[in-house]
Amino acid sequence: MKNFTQFDTRTLADSLIDKALACKASPLEHQEKGKGKRLGLIFLNPSLRTRVSTQLAASNLGVESFALNMDKETWALEMQDGVLMNKNKVEHIKDAAAVLGGYFDFLAIRAFPSLTNKEEDTEDFIINQFIRYSGIPVISLESAIRHPLQSLADMVTIRENFQEKRKPKVVLTWAPHIKSIPHAVANSFSEWALGCGHDLTITHPVGYELDEQFTQGATIEYDQNKALEDADFVYVKNWSAFNPYGKILKVDENWLLKESKFKKNSKARVMHCLPVRRNLELSDEILDGSRSLVQNQAKNRIFAAQAVIDSLL
Amino acid sequence: MKNFTQFDTRTLADSLIDKALACKASPLEHQEKGKGKRLGLIFLNPSLRTRVSTQLAASNLGVESFALNMDKETWALEMQDGVLMNKNKVEHIKDAAAVLGGYFDFLAIRAFPSLTNKEEDTEDFIINQFIRYSGIPVISLESAIRHPLQSLADMVTIRENFQEKRKPKVVLTWAPHIKSIPHAVANSFSEWALGCGHDLTITHPVGYELDEQFTQGATIEYDQNKALEDADFVYVKNWSAFNPYGKILKVDENWLLKESKFKKNSKARVMHCLPVRRNLELSDEILDGSRSLVQNQAKNRIFAAQAVIDSLL
Amino acid sequence: MKNFTQFDTRTLADSLIDKALACKASPLEHQEKGKGKRLGLIFLNPSLRTRVSTQLAASNLGVESFALNMDKETWALEMQDGVLMNKNKVEHIKDAAAVLGGYFDFLAIRAFPSLTNKEEDTEDFIINQFIRYSGIPVISLESAIRHPLQSLADMVTIRENFQEKRKPKVVLTWAPHIKSIPHAVANSFSEWALGCGHDLTITHPVGYELDEQFTQGATIEYDQNKALEDADFVYVKNWSAFNPYGKILKVDENWLLKESKFKKNSKARVMHCLPVRRNLELSDEILDGSRSLVQNQAKNRIFAAQAVIDSLL
Repeated sequence: MKNFTQFDTRTLADSLIDKALACKASPLEHQEKGKGKRLGLIFLNPSLRTRVSTQLAASNLGVESFALNMDKETWALEMQDGVLMNKNKVEHIKDAAAVLGGYFDFLAIRAFPSLTNKEEDTEDFIINQFIRYSGIPVISLESAIRHPLQSLADMVTIRENFQEKRKPKVVLTWAPHIKSIPHAVANSFSEWALGCGHDLTITHPVGYELDEQFTQGATIEYDQNKALEDADFVYVKNWSAFNPYGKILKVDENWLLKESKFKKNSKARVMHCLPVRRNLELSDEILDGSRSLVQNQAKNRIFAAQAVIDSLL
Repeated sequence: MKNFTQFDTRTLADSLIDKALACKASPLEHQEKGKGKRLGLIFLNPSLRTRVSTQLAASNLGVESFALNMDKETWALEMQDGVLMNKNKVEHIKDAAAVLGGYFDFLAIRAFPSLTNKEEDTEDFIINQFIRYSGIPVISLESAIRHPLQSLADMVTIRENFQEKRKPKVVLTWAPHIKSIPHAVANSFSEWALGCGHDLTITHPVGYELDEQFTQGATIEYDQNKALEDADFVYVKNWSAFNPYGKILKVDENWLLKESKFKKNSKARVMHCLPVRRNLELSDEILDGSRSLVQNQAKNRIFAAQAVIDSLL
Repeated sequence: MKNFTQFDTRTLADSLIDKALACKASPLEHQEKGKGKRLGLIFLNPSLRTRVSTQLAASNLGVESFALNMDKETWALEMQDGVLMNKNKVEHIKDAAAVLGGYFDFLAIRAFPSLTNKEEDTEDFIINQFIRYSGIPVISLESAIRHPLQSLADMVTIRENFQEKRKPKVVLTWAPHIKSIPHAVANSFSEWALGCGHDLTITHPVGYELDEQFTQGATIEYDQNKALEDADFVYVKNWSAFNPYGKILKVDENWLLKESKFKKNSKARVMHCLPVRRNLELSDEILDGSRSLVQNQAKNRIFAAQAVIDSLL
């Protein structure tokens, strides 16, 4: 594994899940392994959960980490090659990434999509520029189109909570929101659930179809109630439209996931990557009840990151 | 001691003062004690002295600390239960505190008052929500109504600078300011000075009476000169009115504490929690002279925090 | 060496260059040397390269470092003595520096010039106030008029890339920019190149003469092409006018350094402190080609800082 930016193979995913569970059982067992190594965390967008869990993961392995806020506005990296830099951009990604590559042993990058430039976002342009110019291993802390550390933590959570021999039935359900939200979590969850061999159904209002490169092999079901019927795991997430790109379409608030929707399904566990808008995306009743796995997912973010850093060492 | 948010008993206060002085004598003696433990410092408001002194205290004990700026505006936690989160708040305290509780071994929180919602401030609502939902020990880095680490450092400073058998005479004097300032430092100083058995006089212009729950047992004296007469320690601090809540009342600038007010009192030592507005609250002459204990107090913040963290380990 | 804020003697400079190269050869060799020591990094202005390289340098020596953003606006230190603090400044440098001096073993300070108050900038007022009131060793992370850690890294880079017995011919060339830029890097480069005994030519448009206290002994050449002719090292940097202070004068964009200017000089290596405005100050062709030493300089920032911290231990 050179970089960690997306699902690779089922073999690799399974070994990362195994390693994450081993880290969880004994977090500080390999504290000497990363001694003298440095991880730079570059945030082009805000982060709290991802920052803390990744820094704790690094610390568990003896890796020293440095979080750098390179906010898009205050730092203003030029991402395009060959331009005359006489505007507001103060440094070119070529130079900044190379410097950081010389300072650290690996980089972790958070770079949200514009949600306005579909082509650039879909190419995952920013993180790929960091990979191209830094010359060291890069970990995605959520890119324009993927959030693989979240998905790895989600797969760990599913593994911990499903003991049957058959494939788990996993449902990814769209939820209402008031803001235009990236597709990264939904894309990655779909990519990883399918890659790990789960039986995946995606349910959303007409118009919210995700980029097909992430959903091939999933069942698309526009009737939420039908999708939920025999689900083992229900992953709740809002995303904006992919066509027209980044827009919020008018939809029914009935897509809020609440307990009454589980009348026929007592076993289903509910997942969300957090932060969650209570009573808009997911009801208090579910979040505060026994179906909820959201705290397990958040905790597993540490061990997902630890498994990835360990693999890169 | 489960949390550290206020004065508890004189026995506990005395043992914390003893421990702080032991830490000061030998700061790095117990650097192995906190190995593998993590302290999260949550700042809903800015901090410099508190941040640095608490992180140094943690480091002295081998505890790893992480400072997180969850500024009220950029992070925007929903604090009220049961609401539909379709406005500007992005995450509920229930979820955020539980996640942080899963990541850290203890939390330290700074949460200033609104100075507009008297009821919520008086209940110390925000820090209590963190205690309720994080499930781990919480240290106050200044809440809506108390600043106990400052007061513990102040008690350590008084102990170091008073060798007589009798009770020290301590005066808390109001000082002018141009902004509406919280009551937390004044409340806590009163609570701790009284709790530690000191002879406390509070002097302020009419109208600046503090919340009585913190001042019972203190002498209230509206004549500043009279209050200062035989003081051993004079603690200078501005605060806004408690009634009407958070307001600045018109007052005489003569409340500035200056050297000429000590004509009859050569021994009095002067204290302030910093930052101080020079020549508005306290004169240059006093701050730069031998009466001043302000640097001792600031330094003792490290050992007050160290005593508290040590006790929670 | 008590503080590190400027060029001192050639003997000291040579020994720091030697030490930096020894650190580079074996960065972690003395990781026990700084155990228990703390370095406070105070940023009155933004920093990324300087911050990271200095923190890595500290870590290489086992020194714990704390970066504090005391942004001029949000922190607002009062720098003038004797004033009545009833405006927007919340703390006096006297008090803040003394507190920090009590918390840390050494301080590192970044304080850019105003570019409007020539007298105060030229006195290097802010960093000198920190030195005066903190009572502990101070390292400049770029002050109003000097950037000595950058210059030390530059001298290390020249040493590594010049094996001949003769003095290297070094050219400092002004470059176009769209903003009013401080003189600190140019001043310090001139001060160190001359102090280290290099043959220095400074070339710039008429009107961009630097403060003579830094350039005595250098050749001033207004014809850039002539200056470049037999240069071994060409240091590219923009700066605003010194007279009228801080202004941008109208100049020809032909001062952009590009490959065609080296037709008669195949050997010259090109340097820049970064961040660089590509194709405004320096062409892509040079930056991405074999003449460029900019990444070497950036990397050497770590070892320059490490040599300085090591010397202060």
